[in-house]
Amino acid sequence: MVNHMAEHTVTFDTAPQPIHVPTGTLLVEAARLAGVDIHQPCGGQGRCGRCAVVVREGTVRRRSTLRLSGEDVANGYALACQSVVEGNAFITVPPQEAIERRLTTDLTAAAVAVPAGYNPTQAQTVQRVRLSLPPPSMDDQRDDWSRLQTTLRQQAGIELIRASLAQFQQIGRALREGNWRVTAVLDADAWDCPGCPARLIDLQAGHCPEDTPLWGVAVDIGTTTVTLWLVDLLTGQARAQVAEYNRQITRGEDVISRIIYAGKNNGAVELRDLVLETINGLLETACKRVQAQPADVVKATISGNSTMIHLLLKVPAESIRLSPFVTAVNDIPTLTAREVGLNIHPEATIDCLPGVASYVGADITAGVLASGLEDSDGITLFIDVGTNGEIVLGSRDWLVTCACSAGPAFEGSGVVNGMRATKGAIEEVWVNGATFEPTYRVVGGGKPRGLCGSGLIALLAEMSLTGVVDKGGNINTVLPTPRVRLGEHGPEYVVAWADETAHGHDITITRVDVDNLVRAKAAIYAGFTVLAERVGLPLETVERVLVGGSFGKYINVEKAVEIGLLPDKPWDCFHFLGNTSVRGAYLALIDREARARVKAIAARMTYIELSADNTFYEAFTSALFLPHTDLSRFPSVQAVP
Amino acid sequence: MVNHMAEHTVTFDTAPQPIHVPTGTLLVEAARLAGVDIHQPCGGQGRCGRCAVVVREGTVRRRSTLRLSGEDVANGYALACQSVVEGNAFITVPPQEAIERRLTTDLTAAAVAVPAGYNPTQAQTVQRVRLSLPPPSMDDQRDDWSRLQTTLRQQAGIELIRASLAQFQQIGRALREGNWRVTAVLDADAWDCPGCPARLIDLQAGHCPEDTPLWGVAVDIGTTTVTLWLVDLLTGQARAQVAEYNRQITRGEDVISRIIYAGKNNGAVELRDLVLETINGLLETACKRVQAQPADVVKATISGNSTMIHLLLKVPAESIRLSPFVTAVNDIPTLTAREVGLNIHPEATIDCLPGVASYVGADITAGVLASGLEDSDGITLFIDVGTNGEIVLGSRDWLVTCACSAGPAFEGSGVVNGMRATKGAIEEVWVNGATFEPTYRVVGGGKPRGLCGSGLIALLAEMSLTGVVDKGGNINTVLPTPRVRLGEHGPEYVVAWADETAHGHDITITRVDVDNLVRAKAAIYAGFTVLAERVGLPLETVERVLVGGSFGKYINVEKAVEIGLLPDKPWDCFHFLGNTSVRGAYLALIDREARARVKAIAARMTYIELSADNTFYEAFTSALFLPHTDLSRFPSVQAVP
Repeated sequence: MVNHMAEHTVTFDTAPQPIHVPTGTLLVEAARLAGVDIHQPCGGQGRCGRCAVVVREGTVRRRSTLRLSGEDVANGYALACQSVVEGNAFITVPPQEAIERRLTTDLTAAAVAVPAGYNPTQAQTVQRVRLSLPPPSMDDQRDDWSRLQTTLRQQAGIELIRASLAQFQQIGRALREGNWRVTAVLDADAWDCPGCPARLIDLQAGHCPEDTPLWGVAVDIGTTTVTLWLVDLLTGQARAQVAEYNRQITRGEDVISRIIYAGKNNGAVELRDLVLETINGLLETACKRVQAQPADVVKATISGNSTMIHLLLKVPAESIRLSPFVTAVNDIPTLTAREVGLNIHPEATIDCLPGVASYVGADITAGVLASGLEDSDGITLFIDVGTNGEIVLGSRDWLVTCACSAGPAFEGSGVVNGMRATKGAIEEVWVNGATFEPTYRVVGGGKPRGLCGSGLIALLAEMSLTGVVDKGGNINTVLPTPRVRLGEHGPEYVVAWADETAHGHDITITRVDVDNLVRAKAAIYAGFTVLAERVGLPLETVERVLVGGSFGKYINVEKAVEIGLLPDKPWDCFHFLGNTSVRGAYLALIDREARARVKAIAARMTYIELSADNTFYEAFTSALFLPHTDLSRFPSVQAVP
Repeated sequence: MVNHMAEHTVTFDTAPQPIHVPTGTLLVEAARLAGVDIHQPCGGQGRCGRCAVVVREGTVRRRSTLRLSGEDVANGYALACQSVVEGNAFITVPPQEAIERRLTTDLTAAAVAVPAGYNPTQAQTVQRVRLSLPPPSMDDQRDDWSRLQTTLRQQAGIELIRASLAQFQQIGRALREGNWRVTAVLDADAWDCPGCPARLIDLQAGHCPEDTPLWGVAVDIGTTTVTLWLVDLLTGQARAQVAEYNRQITRGEDVISRIIYAGKNNGAVELRDLVLETINGLLETACKRVQAQPADVVKATISGNSTMIHLLLKVPAESIRLSPFVTAVNDIPTLTAREVGLNIHPEATIDCLPGVASYVGADITAGVLASGLEDSDGITLFIDVGTNGEIVLGSRDWLVTCACSAGPAFEGSGVVNGMRATKGAIEEVWVNGATFEPTYRVVGGGKPRGLCGSGLIALLAEMSLTGVVDKGGNINTVLPTPRVRLGEHGPEYVVAWADETAHGHDITITRVDVDNLVRAKAAIYAGFTVLAERVGLPLETVERVLVGGSFGKYINVEKAVEIGLLPDKPWDCFHFLGNTSVRGAYLALIDREARARVKAIAARMTYIELSADNTFYEAFTSALFLPHTDLSRFPSVQAVP
């Protein structure tokens, strides 16, 4: 049979040699013959988009281009499970990571770039100036401090400065050791105290070389992960980016349990010390990479949710947890590293970005700043999904925000086999629509231990698409597969059999888990609804959806739409921005104007308390459906056969 | 003989019964007959003024009224050694202390009085306000800090405040414990930072009773003595005044030796700790007297010479000692008790009064403030004599100042039998012009151990008056008295024989001592001369001479004029103001306007460096004479027979 048909030579870049296949051969089949392994998580249904390859030369017919953009196709992309050979072809197989990046629009790389048009000299709040003071004499007996101030005025145009007692103890030595030539570092932007004198951070004997970097750090304290960017303030460039688990995790996985822990005995001190250890450890690592000393760092900006900021500063956070849910302080004045306990220059200024409410913290104002939402023409939705879903809706003209108590389901808590997105977590799942057999990807490779948030979203979407669960979240127990069964907690679906797992137990998702996930996604979707209703605009008017936070970095937008977590929008409406919190802190570190903007953002954001809102409950109940009670809200999901 | 003359009844208030004496009997003789002991330190020469009594009724003829003012005579004062009975009389003998106070115009009592027209509400920089905050609710979820700030604005008219991290850690608890009623203490006068927000000092749960005192302290750190006034800021009244030796004395008696000590090993820390111990000890004592706690003290002002301020703050003082003699800082910004280490409220603001130069410190600007010199119509001279003589000359329109290296002679150093004005120091001396026998008064009574500054001045004056020394300072070795002799160090005069002294050795003054004292007084007098020359005014135009410092409290102005230490002026030109340094600190503590004034004083004072001035050396050489080479400058001394 084969001989009757035309044969074509297909060359895979990763194969030892070309193969010959007849017209109509699927690329995945050709690859198999050539000894090339192409992942097909959805089992070749053309749904997951993960078998995309690039047709460099030759003729291939694409039966389906689902998940591929027009640009992708123009660039040669084709789904290997949906494309057939119709002539000689040269195919490259992108590495798995490249595929993932293409599918999830990870802006991490872009985040490192200095903002376009950035002019460090104009934008910087920190100034380093070389001064030559007239030495004192019997004819000029001014005190060291006056002499320094006058010289700063004359040689650097800085009118007034302030210094700490510790600095007064050191000024004289620096002046004399440098033979009246010194290098001063000042922070001129007193954002907590408009019109106040510039702060003296450092005074070193002699004139330092012009090209010596001037270090600053931007820190995002996540409940789970702490991220730190080490930045050369002279250029604005991030020179090292490091992240580590927040060591507070050992004292509670979510903010509520941390607040409770902080209220016990020495808990507040312990938690403060743990996060300081984390940050100081990251500082060491980052500094080593660029051969700097932590003590060279002269400024820090810090972002994080309100609880994280309170715990860092050992400010009691109890009121965040208890009705009526207020923080001690949303907008803390500039502090010094000495006060806070950061192992950088003790006089370094530390600016915590301003928060808005107990559950809309600095991480969200930083996110709004980094995403550009606050300056957008069209109506934009910004979301950051973690234990809570924080949502901001708005444009250049207005900003409303709310936090929905989604619960920790998407962080893997409250789900029998849930876990954080660490090694062993199933982070992506595809279910074959005919066999109901799942395929999954595990963080770090190896055997799975449970399901993390993105895995749960994907699983729920796949179960819904393949009919394993119905729109009401009920598991279809009559399907012809052993994977659907009645377990201890009612109906359940087996994602991994005991012999495939790291711990030797089946990994399942139960009806109760599904309910928890549906409630979580419903809370977030209801948040969108209420915000939109509050401003009298239908969700359809939203032009862009910006997804921030590390959670957003890994989720699959199509699957999130499929379960009704994200609103049903064209693919190109969604922008996954990665860690917008650290990016916002970075902008506030390097750019005076960005600092003013984040302050203005916090002041402009109207916080809407959902727990005091009846319409929220209604919207929430309507959303307790996959994807929603009102299917007209999800036309693309409705269209899937 | 006695019978032929008219007899008169003389009644002494302290005598068991009246006595009868003839016309012409000296009052001292009458007193002796009546069994009343009247001190006659000068041996009845009518020079010392210490035998003054009050003639309540009757007729007494005053042969001489030297040392008595017209007002004294109008009030009945008479010198008992110079007045004779001419009729019945009733005489009161003032206690010795009362006499001393009258003769040395000690304004200590007046210094305690709240300034005339003082209105605490208007003048105070520290405010205590009772606030009632609207409790948070689901409809009002502002953070604690914003809530507090808004309430302060609405209920106390305070626009902006700033707080430390430690305070942010405590605000929430105070608000909730007080059920949203709190008492806030703020320092609204940021003299180091005009236009800056008010500082939050204290926030207590509940409304404190209106009459609870609000404590502040004014501290003068003298090289020898530290003085502290505990003041109720609500009324401006000093409620306790305490003083103690500066514990730094064990590490050097003068500023130079302290600076040298501070430069050794841990010397700076030791000296800082010693003065802190001194102040904190005084705080304890003062607080106990009024049943307050040191932690209740919410503000402190500190005066002292530039070295004392530097050592307190552990700011290196080495440059004060070395040419060109500059301080690290003359005008240090507001600090907190936490930074400085004072055991008062940790957030209490601490304002060090501003200095002008290395040897014209905050003690002098405080003195100018307290003395009112800076607001006087006529030309006024202000002097503060210690190791250095600090001099200010001026009026409302101008102020010039200098410091003369008088050396420590007047503090008892550099003189064989010199000592500080402590127990056992001879503080006043009279020499009988006929017998050359001395009479002296010892601090604390008891046997003498040596001579302190005021004793040395008195001794030198008496020796000069009685011819024991000539105008050139030479001891007249041919006088018919065993007290003048040739000792180990050349000619000397014995003030106390070994058997009268505490240590069993003769107390003498040598030719070398006399030289040292003459050089010291010449330096100070030359300072006056140069200051006056600099502004082109003769010393005669000086209308008032204000003597500050504890030294000034004890010296005898007439004797100081006699040796040429003070300019020759009528008695009522001199005002001995006692400790003007602590008084200035007190004014800066209680009065916003006084604070502005002392800043202006420091800025207005033109410092003249004498060591760079040739005219100083000439003036100094001319003054190396008792009282001066140019006797026309001392007409009253010239007039003494």
